[in-house]
Amino acid sequence: MIKFSINKVAFQNALKITKQAIGSKVTIPALTKLKITVTAEGITLTGSNGQISIENFLPASDKDAGMNISGTGSILLEASFFESVVSQMPELTLEFEELEQKQVLLTSGKSEITLKGQDAEIYPRIQEISQENPLKINVGFLKEIFTETVFAVSTQESRPIFTGVHLVLSDKKNLKAVATDSHRMSQRLLALENDGSDFDVVLPSKSIQSFKNVFTNDEEDLDISLANNQILFRNERISYYSRLIEGTYPDTNRLIPNEADYSLNLVFDVAALRRTMERARLLSNATANGTVKLTVSGDSVITTANSPEVGSVHEELTAIEKTGEDIAISFNPQYLIDALRVIKEPEVRIRFISNVRPFTLLPKNDTDSFVQLITPVRTN
Amino acid sequence: MIKFSINKVAFQNALKITKQAIGSKVTIPALTKLKITVTAEGITLTGSNGQISIENFLPASDKDAGMNISGTGSILLEASFFESVVSQMPELTLEFEELEQKQVLLTSGKSEITLKGQDAEIYPRIQEISQENPLKINVGFLKEIFTETVFAVSTQESRPIFTGVHLVLSDKKNLKAVATDSHRMSQRLLALENDGSDFDVVLPSKSIQSFKNVFTNDEEDLDISLANNQILFRNERISYYSRLIEGTYPDTNRLIPNEADYSLNLVFDVAALRRTMERARLLSNATANGTVKLTVSGDSVITTANSPEVGSVHEELTAIEKTGEDIAISFNPQYLIDALRVIKEPEVRIRFISNVRPFTLLPKNDTDSFVQLITPVRTN
Repeated sequence: MIKFSINKVAFQNALKITKQAIGSKVTIPALTKLKITVTAEGITLTGSNGQISIENFLPASDKDAGMNISGTGSILLEASFFESVVSQMPELTLEFEELEQKQVLLTSGKSEITLKGQDAEIYPRIQEISQENPLKINVGFLKEIFTETVFAVSTQESRPIFTGVHLVLSDKKNLKAVATDSHRMSQRLLALENDGSDFDVVLPSKSIQSFKNVFTNDEEDLDISLANNQILFRNERISYYSRLIEGTYPDTNRLIPNEADYSLNLVFDVAALRRTMERARLLSNATANGTVKLTVSGDSVITTANSPEVGSVHEELTAIEKTGEDIAISFNPQYLIDALRVIKEPEVRIRFISNVRPFTLLPKNDTDSFVQLITPVRTN
Repeated sequence: MIKFSINKVAFQNALKITKQAIGSKVTIPALTKLKITVTAEGITLTGSNGQISIENFLPASDKDAGMNISGTGSILLEASFFESVVSQMPELTLEFEELEQKQVLLTSGKSEITLKGQDAEIYPRIQEISQENPLKINVGFLKEIFTETVFAVSTQESRPIFTGVHLVLSDKKNLKAVATDSHRMSQRLLALENDGSDFDVVLPSKSIQSFKNVFTNDEEDLDISLANNQILFRNERISYYSRLIEGTYPDTNRLIPNEADYSLNLVFDVAALRRTMERARLLSNATANGTVKLTVSGDSVITTANSPEVGSVHEELTAIEKTGEDIAISFNPQYLIDALRVIKEPEVRIRFISNVRPFTLLPKNDTDSFVQLITPVRTN
């Protein structure tokens, strides 16, 4: 039966990572549990909500964990309750001992807490993925392309394929991430340093959120493997499994306009444009169609929004660069705010075709590795 | 018609204070508005939710406000929307100009926002309170006695009188604050430095919350006046009105035991006892009656809680001092945690009569200025 002592902080940190995969709203009761597996080599903490699964291994050799294992086995404990108990234990060392009938005695200083556990046999098996030559990707790069695209996914479950980010590896090295909710689109291309087998998958946006909380070291490389409609991201300790969204993602390349079609090219300061849109949003939120109007006429660029009930906004914008024809175009300022938020360069290039065709955004000094697209709203 | 310019930050800070009195859930639509009154002397911002009203005066002479008044009058604006607009204006100076038909033009840099206002005549009149010799009390003292008592008010609207803090001034100088929800009680006595007319009122706990956000300078004195079932706290700029709870507060003095009745006296470290109770609460929350049991036997003091479904806790406590008889008593640990939270001294004295009578808590070096009382739960 399980028996070990461990540094409380190291154990808490490991619990925190595994808990990213454990939801409170799950249909299978076993999935509210944490699975603890102890071998002579160390302790594995497993959690799953059915969509995401995390296996987190704490090696006995880890000096920070101050681990002393004197009994092995597996057990299930109520995850959220167990985490609260561990975090409130009084001393820096925690003793964990399995008693008869799946009871667990936790001791720390003068505090003794007994918890009812369950047989680990009832825990669903996580289907392992093994791939001979997994693709290696830097965590920082992955987070970057996730951040640049995931905000544009659809939140409507009616078309599930659009609730994820489309990830494509082609020619073994060219990674593309793209997301769209049919009103706007964000696409990022990245040439990888390592080779891998081509893939074409759709990763749920929820998995992307917890991915960011699980892999916190941006410097390290992860192994990526695919099988059985699942993706596995793995480093030395953590195996992070996510289900993929089934279905075929539509071809988004055809949405990006041809260079020749653009009639107007503007460059703005990202922060200034974003603040203008935030002010305009205050008013546009109160209007029927929720739009602002951008009117470009000669050297003048004016943003307006008008709500008959609440009031109106009128603001002059400074375009750093303007080439092309005048335009008056209406759109939802929230889409532009979201788009500007993920542009790290100080200046953005916005190009228009007409007031009924989507317009595109690029960081000013970018050509095509990070392109965003926003569809205007037709107004009278 | 109103016309002024003002420093945005000074104006925002003034708005923030007044907004404490403006609720979004009000039955009278005018009470979602902010009333702005401009005279040659300065700007008054008035807000009210029917229970609390704040009049906040910004004098024209305030150098931080950089005010320039060129037109006077009164107008109503949607409070929460107006605050958002002001906070997002681009430059440090804000121009405010009333146009025709109660429209307001705000200008800051290149941003122009027009808002629809309403006639200030529809705003309910705040009944003024004037008292010749108002009582002067230090803000810091008031906050202290509020903090020490307000947590013990009842949250059940069925007995409204218990949802407020009972404030009594007797013999012109002796202030008493007391709150009880019938399971626990907290009472604080304070001898004032200034004289005032005796009073006996019940202040709603919600008013105490916003009071703390409105009066932020603990060093200053406030004038307190009473009339028409209202209390007024006032400094040079801010008049803070609160309705009082009608009815007679029961006599709580008779609840405090006589010295002679105590059979057991214990002294604990406040922080250590609180952490023990927080651990015990993890388990007691899962039990039917939500209690922990404290067993005092000779030199041993043990806290236990036991839930047949979840598990149990068993913890030895160190009593710094023990005199009297042994006891085993059950109570809701949340009450003890709340009580310990407001004790600023490092040690607390707890005295028991029997396992069915309320026990009392005092900061160890206190005799009777701050006493708390907790009723035990009878268990089998």
